Amino acid sequence: MSAPIVHGGGITAAATALGGRPEDWLDLSTGINPCPVALPEIPARAWHRLPDRHLVDAARFAARDHYGSGEILPLPVPGTQSVIQLLPRLVGADERIAVTDDRIAVVSPTYGEYARAFTSAGFAVDAVNDVAAIGAAHRLAVVVNPNNPDGRIWPAETLVALHDRIKAANGFLVVDEAFGDTNPALSLASRAPQLSNLVIFRSFGKFFGLAGLRLGFAIAGENILERFEDWLGPWAVSGPALSLAASLLRSDVSPIHSRIEERSIGLHTALDGAGLRIAGGTALFTLVNDARASDIYTYLCQHHILVRKFDNAPDWLRFGLAPDPAADRRLGEALQRFKR
Amino acid sequence: MSAPIVHGGGITAAATALGGRPEDWLDLSTGINPCPVALPEIPARAWHRLPDRHLVDAARFAARDHYGSGEILPLPVPGTQSVIQLLPRLVGADERIAVTDDRIAVVSPTYGEYARAFTSAGFAVDAVNDVAAIGAAHRLAVVVNPNNPDGRIWPAETLVALHDRIKAANGFLVVDEAFGDTNPALSLASRAPQLSNLVIFRSFGKFFGLAGLRLGFAIAGENILERFEDWLGPWAVSGPALSLAASLLRSDVSPIHSRIEERSIGLHTALDGAGLRIAGGTALFTLVNDARASDIYTYLCQHHILVRKFDNAPDWLRFGLAPDPAADRRLGEALQRFKR
Repeated sequence: MSAPIVHGGGITAAATALGGRPEDWLDLSTGINPCPVALPEIPARAWHRLPDRHLVDAARFAARDHYGSGEILPLPVPGTQSVIQLLPRLVGADERIAVTDDRIAVVSPTYGEYARAFTSAGFAVDAVNDVAAIGAAHRLAVVVNPNNPDGRIWPAETLVALHDRIKAANGFLVVDEAFGDTNPALSLASRAPQLSNLVIFRSFGKFFGLAGLRLGFAIAGENILERFEDWLGPWAVSGPALSLAASLLRSDVSPIHSRIEERSIGLHTALDGAGLRIAGGTALFTLVNDARASDIYTYLCQHHILVRKFDNAPDWLRFGLAPDPAADRRLGEALQRFKR
Repeated sequence: MSAPIVHGGGITAAATALGGRPEDWLDLSTGINPCPVALPEIPARAWHRLPDRHLVDAARFAARDHYGSGEILPLPVPGTQSVIQLLPRLVGADERIAVTDDRIAVVSPTYGEYARAFTSAGFAVDAVNDVAAIGAAHRLAVVVNPNNPDGRIWPAETLVALHDRIKAANGFLVVDEAFGDTNPALSLASRAPQLSNLVIFRSFGKFFGLAGLRLGFAIAGENILERFEDWLGPWAVSGPALSLAASLLRSDVSPIHSRIEERSIGLHTALDGAGLRIAGGTALFTLVNDARASDIYTYLCQHHILVRKFDNAPDWLRFGLAPDPAADRRLGEALQRFKR
């Protein structure tokens, strides 16, 4: 068992350690849309019954149309984390006989759960910093696109070429598009039907502001999705989650885009006003590179503002979106006071 | 990959095949309380945020008090199905080198997913019909108590003795108490802190009528629960599910017991009135043994009433509870017409 990774969202722990009521803290430690959509009505049967085929299919067809995955019906999963945990099985963790030469490549730095899942399963993980470093020794490669936390982007053509190279050695390419909703042009979803060794993960909760729901989608060839489905077992996703997906993935998402854009401008204004250097990000979070990062983190905590720091990159801080202009001002003023 | 098992709850498929609107069918094919409790309010943050420690702990403490598991804080899981899928790992499916002599015992006939999970993972599964047939060759044994579908009950002392015997051979005993809520005296939960190789599964949705929620609890020693937690990964259970658990497991459940009891009497009256022989069951379902079972099943389907049949026990039919007296009468009248 490997040590758990500390993720964002630990506002209760922060409040317990540093005082204040959790609801009075400003939580900028996640990449979740801080303005959740209004919940559409959830039929009573979605709560009451085991999620049946009809409900699952409604979510899958809505996801196909929303993500543009053509003939592939995306598989609903209880958070992409649940399928990250299954990736070692996709490359045969069950069948391996003692030591293996198979290696896993993870374009890094990135979301830590990929390395954790493969290391736990006994694989050697290479943290590579460029897709060019991925080679025939790699049984599976992970690219988060856009990347978390730096927002680094890989063009579709680069990833298609990478897929073909990995596939030639019987490997798999996993592209995590958890933060892809705000940059749909980047998605490989429409190419997926032609790329048999590609697996795409999509997050539902980040863009819609419903991370508590635990819902994501896997997009891949039928033989891969059937294996995930088998490993997850029946009724892996809750009825309310499927019902909301079927409805929200068919709704007009342009107001969500506008709101995120507005919130992102508010965040950038606060960071710029404090003279912080923006090193990357997506519409849902911004990465700051500053030698004083650790002190800024502590100062903000003292003012009950939680951001995300990185043990392996001490100059980095990741700022999520604040829920409204007042919270932007609260952040901006705290940062300005720190400067003095 | 093994073939999926056909479970109850497939009302949409039945309606598609045989006509009628799904909502006009009477679904007696599951063991779920047909009278869901009123939903307590779910705070917006439970939907919006990743389920944090505070929310998980609130559910765990409520579950401990409700199930009476003493020093053990039950682990919330996204449906007991999710941990059934993990059981092969508990007995080392990951580390096995090709063939193993380890065998698994499942007291049968019972819920089919246990045999499926172990068979998929390459274990030999013995379907035994008595706990006395479980021996030192069995690395893990599964007892569903009360059993589904026949309601067979194993006294606590028998299971404690079985645990000690299995533990002496370094094995594990899994007791599935999915239908244990209506017979709390049977539960091993209060003994669990003293039984280090015992794993108990509890279902949340069946008793409360919220099967769409996907929530269950595992009760076992800390070393076992930590492994499940690690394998499930962070945020395995949704925020709304944790929030409802924290609230409903502390509520007065006596009205739920009374309602289930009333519904069970209504079901028995309908079955008795048709002269059917009741072969077993729990408060949430009743098993009928009748040589005409297959014809009764078909006849009821024609009248848009779905019950559960069993491929391996062609004389059995399992009837779940109807939601109200009118539905009891609808069932009773259909069965009486069949008799003529």
